[in-house]
Amino acid sequence: MCGIVGIAGKSPVNQELYDALTVLQHRGQDAAGIVTVQDGRLFLRKDNGMVRDVFHTRHMLRLIGNFGIGHVRYPTAGSSSSAEAQPFYVNSPYGITLAHNGNLTNAHDIAKDLFRTDLRHINTDSDSEVLLNVFAHELQDLGKLQPTEDDIFKAVAAVHQRCRGAYAVVAMITGYGLLGFRDPHGIRPIIYGERETPNGKEYIIASESVAITSLGYQVVRDLAPGEAIFINNEGQLFTRQCAQATTFAPCIFEYVYFARPDSRIDNISVYKSRLRMGEKLAAKIKREWGENHGIDVVIPIPDTSRTAALELANNLNVKYREGFMKNRYIGRTFIMPGQSQRKKSVRQKLSPVELEFKGKNVLLVDDSIVRGTTCKEIIQMARDVGARKVFFASAAPPVRYPNVYGIDMPAKGELIAHGHTEQEVCDLIGADGLIYQDLDDLIASAREGNPEITRFDCSVFNGEYVTGDIDDAYLERLERSRNDGAKRKIENVTIDLPNVQG
Amino acid sequence: MCGIVGIAGKSPVNQELYDALTVLQHRGQDAAGIVTVQDGRLFLRKDNGMVRDVFHTRHMLRLIGNFGIGHVRYPTAGSSSSAEAQPFYVNSPYGITLAHNGNLTNAHDIAKDLFRTDLRHINTDSDSEVLLNVFAHELQDLGKLQPTEDDIFKAVAAVHQRCRGAYAVVAMITGYGLLGFRDPHGIRPIIYGERETPNGKEYIIASESVAITSLGYQVVRDLAPGEAIFINNEGQLFTRQCAQATTFAPCIFEYVYFARPDSRIDNISVYKSRLRMGEKLAAKIKREWGENHGIDVVIPIPDTSRTAALELANNLNVKYREGFMKNRYIGRTFIMPGQSQRKKSVRQKLSPVELEFKGKNVLLVDDSIVRGTTCKEIIQMARDVGARKVFFASAAPPVRYPNVYGIDMPAKGELIAHGHTEQEVCDLIGADGLIYQDLDDLIASAREGNPEITRFDCSVFNGEYVTGDIDDAYLERLERSRNDGAKRKIENVTIDLPNVQG
Amino acid sequence: MCGIVGIAGKSPVNQELYDALTVLQHRGQDAAGIVTVQDGRLFLRKDNGMVRDVFHTRHMLRLIGNFGIGHVRYPTAGSSSSAEAQPFYVNSPYGITLAHNGNLTNAHDIAKDLFRTDLRHINTDSDSEVLLNVFAHELQDLGKLQPTEDDIFKAVAAVHQRCRGAYAVVAMITGYGLLGFRDPHGIRPIIYGERETPNGKEYIIASESVAITSLGYQVVRDLAPGEAIFINNEGQLFTRQCAQATTFAPCIFEYVYFARPDSRIDNISVYKSRLRMGEKLAAKIKREWGENHGIDVVIPIPDTSRTAALELANNLNVKYREGFMKNRYIGRTFIMPGQSQRKKSVRQKLSPVELEFKGKNVLLVDDSIVRGTTCKEIIQMARDVGARKVFFASAAPPVRYPNVYGIDMPAKGELIAHGHTEQEVCDLIGADGLIYQDLDDLIASAREGNPEITRFDCSVFNGEYVTGDIDDAYLERLERSRNDGAKRKIENVTIDLPNVQG
Amino acid sequence: MCGIVGIAGKSPVNQELYDALTVLQHRGQDAAGIVTVQDGRLFLRKDNGMVRDVFHTRHMLRLIGNFGIGHVRYPTAGSSSSAEAQPFYVNSPYGITLAHNGNLTNAHDIAKDLFRTDLRHINTDSDSEVLLNVFAHELQDLGKLQPTEDDIFKAVAAVHQRCRGAYAVVAMITGYGLLGFRDPHGIRPIIYGERETPNGKEYIIASESVAITSLGYQVVRDLAPGEAIFINNEGQLFTRQCAQATTFAPCIFEYVYFARPDSRIDNISVYKSRLRMGEKLAAKIKREWGENHGIDVVIPIPDTSRTAALELANNLNVKYREGFMKNRYIGRTFIMPGQSQRKKSVRQKLSPVELEFKGKNVLLVDDSIVRGTTCKEIIQMARDVGARKVFFASAAPPVRYPNVYGIDMPAKGELIAHGHTEQEVCDLIGADGLIYQDLDDLIASAREGNPEITRFDCSVFNGEYVTGDIDDAYLERLERSRNDGAKRKIENVTIDLPNVQG
Repeated sequence: MCGIVGIAGKSPVNQELYDALTVLQHRGQDAAGIVTVQDGRLFLRKDNGMVRDVFHTRHMLRLIGNFGIGHVRYPTAGSSSSAEAQPFYVNSPYGITLAHNGNLTNAHDIAKDLFRTDLRHINTDSDSEVLLNVFAHELQDLGKLQPTEDDIFKAVAAVHQRCRGAYAVVAMITGYGLLGFRDPHGIRPIIYGERETPNGKEYIIASESVAITSLGYQVVRDLAPGEAIFINNEGQLFTRQCAQATTFAPCIFEYVYFARPDSRIDNISVYKSRLRMGEKLAAKIKREWGENHGIDVVIPIPDTSRTAALELANNLNVKYREGFMKNRYIGRTFIMPGQSQRKKSVRQKLSPVELEFKGKNVLLVDDSIVRGTTCKEIIQMARDVGARKVFFASAAPPVRYPNVYGIDMPAKGELIAHGHTEQEVCDLIGADGLIYQDLDDLIASAREGNPEITRFDCSVFNGEYVTGDIDDAYLERLERSRNDGAKRKIENVTIDLPNVQG
Repeated sequence: MCGIVGIAGKSPVNQELYDALTVLQHRGQDAAGIVTVQDGRLFLRKDNGMVRDVFHTRHMLRLIGNFGIGHVRYPTAGSSSSAEAQPFYVNSPYGITLAHNGNLTNAHDIAKDLFRTDLRHINTDSDSEVLLNVFAHELQDLGKLQPTEDDIFKAVAAVHQRCRGAYAVVAMITGYGLLGFRDPHGIRPIIYGERETPNGKEYIIASESVAITSLGYQVVRDLAPGEAIFINNEGQLFTRQCAQATTFAPCIFEYVYFARPDSRIDNISVYKSRLRMGEKLAAKIKREWGENHGIDVVIPIPDTSRTAALELANNLNVKYREGFMKNRYIGRTFIMPGQSQRKKSVRQKLSPVELEFKGKNVLLVDDSIVRGTTCKEIIQMARDVGARKVFFASAAPPVRYPNVYGIDMPAKGELIAHGHTEQEVCDLIGADGLIYQDLDDLIASAREGNPEITRFDCSVFNGEYVTGDIDDAYLERLERSRNDGAKRKIENVTIDLPNVQG
Repeated sequence: MCGIVGIAGKSPVNQELYDALTVLQHRGQDAAGIVTVQDGRLFLRKDNGMVRDVFHTRHMLRLIGNFGIGHVRYPTAGSSSSAEAQPFYVNSPYGITLAHNGNLTNAHDIAKDLFRTDLRHINTDSDSEVLLNVFAHELQDLGKLQPTEDDIFKAVAAVHQRCRGAYAVVAMITGYGLLGFRDPHGIRPIIYGERETPNGKEYIIASESVAITSLGYQVVRDLAPGEAIFINNEGQLFTRQCAQATTFAPCIFEYVYFARPDSRIDNISVYKSRLRMGEKLAAKIKREWGENHGIDVVIPIPDTSRTAALELANNLNVKYREGFMKNRYIGRTFIMPGQSQRKKSVRQKLSPVELEFKGKNVLLVDDSIVRGTTCKEIIQMARDVGARKVFFASAAPPVRYPNVYGIDMPAKGELIAHGHTEQEVCDLIGADGLIYQDLDDLIASAREGNPEITRFDCSVFNGEYVTGDIDDAYLERLERSRNDGAKRKIENVTIDLPNVQG
Repeated sequence: MCGIVGIAGKSPVNQELYDALTVLQHRGQDAAGIVTVQDGRLFLRKDNGMVRDVFHTRHMLRLIGNFGIGHVRYPTAGSSSSAEAQPFYVNSPYGITLAHNGNLTNAHDIAKDLFRTDLRHINTDSDSEVLLNVFAHELQDLGKLQPTEDDIFKAVAAVHQRCRGAYAVVAMITGYGLLGFRDPHGIRPIIYGERETPNGKEYIIASESVAITSLGYQVVRDLAPGEAIFINNEGQLFTRQCAQATTFAPCIFEYVYFARPDSRIDNISVYKSRLRMGEKLAAKIKREWGENHGIDVVIPIPDTSRTAALELANNLNVKYREGFMKNRYIGRTFIMPGQSQRKKSVRQKLSPVELEFKGKNVLLVDDSIVRGTTCKEIIQMARDVGARKVFFASAAPPVRYPNVYGIDMPAKGELIAHGHTEQEVCDLIGADGLIYQDLDDLIASAREGNPEITRFDCSVFNGEYVTGDIDDAYLERLERSRNDGAKRKIENVTIDLPNVQG
């Protein structure tokens, strides 16, 4: 998962792009980058690390210009290397820069085509570099000295024809303007806003609404699936539907875990959807465990699950307590000569407030259960400080399938719910009881915020991939490459594969 | 305020000291340092910055040895420079290193004495360097080639005779052992723990219990006021009361704001004391505003006030909601050429979840109100997203007096409650109603956890300074120096005054 | 001026490229860069600074692969920005990287064309980026999926058609091989060598022979003007004459100042050519000043002029003495607050050995006189330590015209010999006598090493530009842009204009 | 060997100390440091690395004040760790900082005493820390609140009583002034100068005169053996002989190799002494090899030997040629994974100008022969480019004994002349003939510059140690510790042992 932002401003945008990236930092803490443009010259700074570490004053001084785009990257273990920071750049045609959230499912095939048909060299494993080159190729094919918005939208349409998967994109065509577009299924979110200034109207495109509002812009609306938006250098805004009608299927995991609660995504308040998850989970508990569920206190695993847990407690009529404190200043574990890597235990990230556990039946609530290893440690911690019984609730259904649309999930074999019943999972994590949200309830939690959305991508829960191109062969290749990737990452830990960049 | 830790181990302590400092990071984020000892050689790393930024692998590799101490420093605006990282070191006698939490109220006078009587050069404005030299001088006066625990405790007793103020200290006497001591009023906290290992027993001394438990040690007990603890190189532990009997008066602000909720300080659970603050504040609201207080929802200002706010809501029988989201990834505001510094607005740190405010009467809860400027901005934010009425509650009484015991409070003139009635404060921050905790209730909130404590230092609330040496003349000097200090800090922003260190 | 190197090896080339760049460091100390290729992936490191500062272990670890090119850049004040490190990269077609020594005289016109005809974005002021894009465009036009050596040589031929000026180039076509080529007048030097290894033959292309020999390769020969060399991925070498027959006119300044004395350039030993400069200058002194020239001692201005000065002394039958010691460890002059920049005086770079001057008539020898300011200071220094008379000899004729082929010379107005007679120069620098080499003698000094060369580019001395496209209008634009460039450089000192790179 | 400087100025001294250290950089390139004082506060910057790398603008901005001292350190393999940068500091009494060139031969014994008698902790292996603590102890014993120049000179006299070995020292007594002193045998050089300014007279103390003159000061004179100089805070200068009369025996190696040729040391021009070495070596060649020595050309090994080689050639009436070019930009050899360290061959540091060797009998001249390994490689290089016969001349006699006075020489077993006759050395290095300077001639070369000096320390040549405390047992311990030290250095390469400093 990643965060993207683009601003078409009337004054320098470096600080605002930086601020937007800090607001989107939860979407990716692995790398960050900004490119700006002034007088036809591009200025770029990108590196591994968090926003606060990547940009120093000397970099900001260079990032001049009133238009720019930015990116924060999530660490992607599986198939791609960990060293490709965005935005990416190609100089032909026009000089195009691009930042991308999502994942192309046919990137590998396209990359071969790109070389065969356009002789374009792809220097990284990143599907974003592929996406950029597809767009560049399509725009070049039109052969215009001065591309109009029509040309640009035509190129986007061609991208939609050629690319499969999930992609929310911001890009700049040097000298012409700022572009944003969203894949035809609308899997990844992208939204835009505007602001009046004495010098004219300014526009911002971002992954989440909170990046728009916290910078003092007003939200206009989400991009529709397949839609593109273009603000030219003069500040004129154009939007266009560039794809054939198809199923809108936004990723439901944004609501479960990824997005900030103070964002609205596709007109659904993330916060409110989480309240509903708590509410529905409470109903299920009452349904399944009865009114005499014996739970004395509801305790969230901070931070994401707090919203759902609070409403769950309210609906169960049980006390809500913040029984785990999160250490906000996690440091590193250093490898000393002659030592092997020591695992950073959960104990260093969370610490229990004993009195909330001692002698009580506690219900721990988390947003979801992926590998299950953390759950298990936390449950043990609860017992260590005296909990009588430890129940566990997941605001999402069992995670059983890999994600192919840009969320970095482990290989199938590492998912605790893969090949296990709920009871088996309960035993594996050592809980006295386990309750998962039903998928229908999860969907309803989101959908009640915007009934116009008829489908969500729930593939990690049900294995149904909306793009229709994911078969067993694909998933097997993915599995292999994730294992290989992980292995290679360890071997080549010091070898970067940058986009031809130091 | 600062955090301190010392470990007398049986294996290398660098990683554990580092981990302890991250756990104590909330006590000071301005500078960090660790010194270790092996075979009579000291190894030191300290610098401005947070723990994660100060220590790199190359530093950790150097910090060898089984004994060591560490420190995190709070940015102290007022009287002292911003450039003195701890621990400090003197080579005579024995080579002594020391880290300190608190503030000496007679440091200035002692510094002059130190030069006159012992020719000791003090190179910084830090009272901790003074404290170290007093201790060193007293120990040197005993003239022992091999100091025993008795000698060391005698020197601590002499420190108690000579120094006024608040001090919790860890120190190492190179070649002899690890020392901890606490001022005779026990104003600042210090606690120790132990752990059995195959190589023998290991000891840890720290500012807060959470640093002990999260590292896997067991808490033994808090140091008594005036008490010292010494673990010699062989691992033998000695404790001694080194001061005349006097009033025990721990700082109440630890419970209000400073300490982590998952710590116990002087046998009082910080978390529980905050629950009680919420409970008592609810009672006062019902008392003063009646059962028809009209509050629809209770919203904490994250993070500190959440515990009190939740219990307040429970006791008011009103919904508790996390209506403000905290941006966890605050970045910098860069000064670009030709621009003046732009203020980082509260809006970048907090963002409201609109639906929790719209059309509602909200009660915002914070731990305390100091300058009042942030309050005012937050109240405005609540109104901007549609709150009908905005009430404000402070879990602590009005802050009216400067702190002289190590908490970095602004000068008196900047305290909003100084010289203003509660109603005036309410008007100044723009609330529809304001309620402060009563001091008696605050004291009770803490004291109910450990009734043996009969007094707390509440000087910021009532102006009563337990050390008895604070008069108007002192406070006036302090006020002046804080103003001067602040001014000098701005002028000399690039000029460090290190303890003879790069 | 710059230094270039390329290696087509059978084992990793990072260390050898690094070593070659240190050997070529005298050709440019402003920036350095290396790009390598492995399995179709490019790895790049470049930055401002000297070789020893740009490459750290972490960079070297990334620079994997058996093929690679490198570059050191001379600070170019005039028309181009100071922030464009090489090699440059374009991804279309094939992924091409290129490093360049020289200057295109029609870069500005081509840049416009490139955009109009190929929509290629040029992001810097560097003519090398233009050159790369011309080559890329020509190669792309051939449209081959797998370019052969013939295709590549065709593209070079097209570059020769389109580009004017001086250029010695190394480039890599990712996946295909290593390329070198030289402009049709052969103005800038380029030479190649080879080495047998157990894994097969390895090739190196470089600016100077000393980079070849010091790495343990054998020199094969200089590239002919207009010639190209290509070593494909399998290690097969091809050379081809890609230009119409034209005048060979290598730059004579390489012999005067630029090249290392232990290099052979176009089959002329630089060292020997300098001996001849000394010899001919001695003859001229005897001719003009007679046998009773009154010179007691010949003293070189270190380091370049030592070779000529020694032979001059031998031929004059006068003692040769190293009367000036060079400080090899020049540091910076820091600007402290409230201070203006202090000039680093010549006195900090050179110091006189008093006894070699006191009471003597000294002849100071330098390779050339450009601005004349340093000369003047040195002459004054000689007088300060007691020289009776101070004569000055320049191993090159008066420098009167700007250089347009890649040597960073000041604007015409700053050349002391521009618009002044030799006697006026003598007065301006404060010498008791001044002797310049005759241009014919200088040419003979070089030509005697390789009589097949009938012409040298001597434009800085005689204003004759071999490429035939330099008119007064061009020179005036140049003058203006150098003045502008210098000005802009001061204003924007912190603003880099990288090739879309941090 | 190290370089020291101190300035008692009337305006900020940071830039001048920095400049002086660059001028003295040849005396030590391993570490650098500066401490300044203002208003009783000390400001320090020191680190491993060359001057240009250790001091950045941010450090210079902190180094405020009109008094200061500086140091450059030579890498000392043998007995001491590589991590102790100077100046050193103790806070008691007064705050004293000190920088030292030389070596105490009884440091180990003193260190034990210091702990026993004064409880002073010594944290490093550096004898300079010992020297500082001896001085501090002696000054503290006098117990003055305000030490006068008499007190300070008394403390220096006590140092002379207690310390054995070589030491040239600059120190600051915070609040009182700048001190310099020289050991009673005057083994290491120290000299002072002065300058009139509008604000009053300024003084400088330094290792070599060139640091004084290149900064624009006038040399006053060398310090006499045992003499001390003190400039108090008011700018008054005092000098005092602080030692009993004893033999003056300056180190002869300063003239052979260490000092810059443009320095005068103890009133002898280093440059002129080297001319005389060449002259006397020529006489010996004629004496031993006859007028028909068959030498065609004299070639120096750059840089040190050029002065002697030129005069040698003049006196032999043979051509002098710079047949070896020195690569001035030596880089690093990186260790890549799976590779072992590759030796940086001499070939990368020197390259031969073939034509000066081909078919000729060459005489190579170096200042001295230590291990002989470089000699051997150079002789081979000469043969490789076609030299007929290769003779070798050393401007110094055979080096047969270790140095105990601060020059970093290898252990005895590694000295090629130890236990070998001159003929054997000749065979070992592969020369066709070898000539060493006679010791009497070397002494005369120096002494003719200042006949008042009757003795020089020539211990590396004759094994006579002027301090009288060096016996076989001492040398054996030294040998062992050098071997151990070397070994430990490799093992603990990443573990610094700083003076309690990061």
